[in-house]
Amino acid sequence: MLTPCVRHVVSRRLSRHCTVGRYSTSLTEGLDQIQTLLQLCVDRYYISPGAINMQLFQRGFSCNYGPLGMELKRNLLNQWWLSVTGSRSQVFGINTLNSSEERAAHGLRIVDSEHLQRILEQHDLSKEQLIHEACKLLQSSPYARTNLLQGALEQFVPSLELVKRKLPFGLAETGLCFQPSDGSGCSAEVTETSLVWFCSPRTSSQWLDHWTRHRLKWWRKFALSPSDFSSSEVPQEELEEAKVRGVKILYNFPWGQETLETLWSRGSTELLHTHNEARSKLQCRDGRKSIPHVVSVSANMDRGMKAFLSNSLQQLKREDGKQKLQQRKALKLHPVLTPVKVALDIWRGATMELRQVCEGLLQEFLVAKIFTWPGYLETLPTSVEQLNTKYDEMGVLFTVVISENTLESGLLQVRSRDTTIKETMHISEIKNFVSRYISAADNI
Amino acid sequence: MLTPCVRHVVSRRLSRHCTVGRYSTSLTEGLDQIQTLLQLCVDRYYISPGAINMQLFQRGFSCNYGPLGMELKRNLLNQWWLSVTGSRSQVFGINTLNSSEERAAHGLRIVDSEHLQRILEQHDLSKEQLIHEACKLLQSSPYARTNLLQGALEQFVPSLELVKRKLPFGLAETGLCFQPSDGSGCSAEVTETSLVWFCSPRTSSQWLDHWTRHRLKWWRKFALSPSDFSSSEVPQEELEEAKVRGVKILYNFPWGQETLETLWSRGSTELLHTHNEARSKLQCRDGRKSIPHVVSVSANMDRGMKAFLSNSLQQLKREDGKQKLQQRKALKLHPVLTPVKVALDIWRGATMELRQVCEGLLQEFLVAKIFTWPGYLETLPTSVEQLNTKYDEMGVLFTVVISENTLESGLLQVRSRDTTIKETMHISEIKNFVSRYISAADNI
Repeated sequence: MLTPCVRHVVSRRLSRHCTVGRYSTSLTEGLDQIQTLLQLCVDRYYISPGAINMQLFQRGFSCNYGPLGMELKRNLLNQWWLSVTGSRSQVFGINTLNSSEERAAHGLRIVDSEHLQRILEQHDLSKEQLIHEACKLLQSSPYARTNLLQGALEQFVPSLELVKRKLPFGLAETGLCFQPSDGSGCSAEVTETSLVWFCSPRTSSQWLDHWTRHRLKWWRKFALSPSDFSSSEVPQEELEEAKVRGVKILYNFPWGQETLETLWSRGSTELLHTHNEARSKLQCRDGRKSIPHVVSVSANMDRGMKAFLSNSLQQLKREDGKQKLQQRKALKLHPVLTPVKVALDIWRGATMELRQVCEGLLQEFLVAKIFTWPGYLETLPTSVEQLNTKYDEMGVLFTVVISENTLESGLLQVRSRDTTIKETMHISEIKNFVSRYISAADNI
Repeated sequence: MLTPCVRHVVSRRLSRHCTVGRYSTSLTEGLDQIQTLLQLCVDRYYISPGAINMQLFQRGFSCNYGPLGMELKRNLLNQWWLSVTGSRSQVFGINTLNSSEERAAHGLRIVDSEHLQRILEQHDLSKEQLIHEACKLLQSSPYARTNLLQGALEQFVPSLELVKRKLPFGLAETGLCFQPSDGSGCSAEVTETSLVWFCSPRTSSQWLDHWTRHRLKWWRKFALSPSDFSSSEVPQEELEEAKVRGVKILYNFPWGQETLETLWSRGSTELLHTHNEARSKLQCRDGRKSIPHVVSVSANMDRGMKAFLSNSLQQLKREDGKQKLQQRKALKLHPVLTPVKVALDIWRGATMELRQVCEGLLQEFLVAKIFTWPGYLETLPTSVEQLNTKYDEMGVLFTVVISENTLESGLLQVRSRDTTIKETMHISEIKNFVSRYISAADNI
């Protein structure tokens, strides 16, 4: 299933990383692990089929997500939002344009290609005229953004009125960014999350530490194996121009560590540059008057999604009654992140009455905003074992089975993904049970 | 505040529309109304200041939104999502890439402009070689999408496994789209919502009617004046190729009607074309085997946002005690849409104890996911009248005022935006009161 291109990338990565730390797995094992995860993501509606997606998965770029992938991304972005804007009253959300004439040059522009084509086809133009016309069009085409930082820096002055020039405060945004191609032919879109924090110069290092702790705690909160997430200070010699300090939040993928989020203490150079060095416009109150320092916190949530998928895949080998070796795979995504909270199924004989019970229950879950999988609509007969395998791989938190018995006694069966234990419960209790379970997991 | 460019556009629009239907307002009145709304949106953190935004507002394009605009857009997209995916169990969310090599030609491509610049600067190339190289680069650059339809059509086949080839079902998506420039120099980004519904050929017209009713009801649910939203069948003679029927959902802006959402019954031509006419791959079960028809439902949510802002602005002239004519403006956005649900303020003397009460209450609201404005952090002294004016213009649903009295008796004052009535309430009741108010408004 892996294309030669991906196999090459993986091998390269593995040979770079396979001797580091806990990742002393052999090349083959690492490849198997990735292959299993990718196949599961395609089979279970996280990623739309197609070889290109396999590459994108590895590289942390966005790809075509299926219904479950889409919902996971939605949940992840929502949790980020609540965590960043809910943590302090001085964080404000913004929404800036993707395209801009003002951004730093990096190469990607949104060009009216038909117009350019017409210029290139004008036979009566000399070579010089043609070059002149083409350059003119190019320079008037807007840039496609590669990150959310520049937009936030531009919004700094309009936000001053909001905060009465009082530091610290932050501007938060999530959105689509494009990344310049590295020549591999892979498309390069990422969904970024960005918090740009403006604070007094003397506190910027403390704030960098504060946000590092805050973010690392956030990533680990949703992890099955929190130690796979770590933070690492960027060595002094690797700091680029205008950056004072940097910290990366990393995840141990089967093929090695990748950066999920980067925090920079950036000083005030870029802020001054964005506002044409107009110092008086930028001054804030903070005991004395000062030009704020900028701490930027930005993550690639497409890669973040893949980190959680990779982190939550649990594979257990076990022997069943007939001594046959079976492998159980479960995607143990955190209850608040996992896309499908409940799957609704009918056990034996989908009569009209049983279907009506399911419809009623489905409506109840929808109103409570609990994402429910209408398994009872599928007409193919499956064994309970097959059903459990499927739902475990989808990461379904609870499987609710309605049977003839439910019509008589009101009792139904609930199976938990995490414990595999089946409980009997009254139909009137199930919605609150699921809601309470999810909020409890959220508040830990 | 309006730039000459906008004034020109507005005048042109008004002269086109001002004699139609209920919009027999004079040119000046129409201009005043827009000017008031735009100024309010800029002053109250909905739209970031800057003349360019004024143009974008009029034209229904996206612009740089401030914290309140951002939150309004978030609420709107969230309500759309819940309404479309929650209404039927056969609607699945997807998330497709913005850039694609496969899309229908329309002109906008994401081009590595530095690479193109290097080609144009190669002095040793002949004119023909230069054109050849530039065209090659252009043709290998991905398209930027202008709508979400094509992505959903491509995801049709991968989705068939999910629904066991059973009709009807739908694919829902929201996302950024680019629009080709009309030469005005205005940037053109829009946030689209899209539902692509696949159904049997004989039911497509009924489904078009179903979704029209569903969508119109949705728009009107959040309106202060629902009759400003209407639907209108696209006349037979205006139907483009491959489209069977069309309906538009319109809003009466002060300058005339604009289309918020378009529903098309599109037959199966585009679906067949997307999948290279492979009929056998596309067949679905539906009594007999058939190639599904496509009903597309797509809205411009940037324009939708502006429709709700325009619709909810209420201006009341009244005389105060001193016989001075005052104008009260309130942004009466629907409780579930309005960005700020509660503003927290201190009345007279912001002592440490009062601030602590506010901090505690703010945390309580944050946990309950109630967006709260920390007015008590602002140090400028303002009169109650000024405070009410500000919060009414921001669309704040409830203003909660903490005073010395609160410390003694636990009682605080709550003012409602919609009734302007002040109530006294115990501090322990306020969170549930606000939550209940919002859910009640949601369930009407």
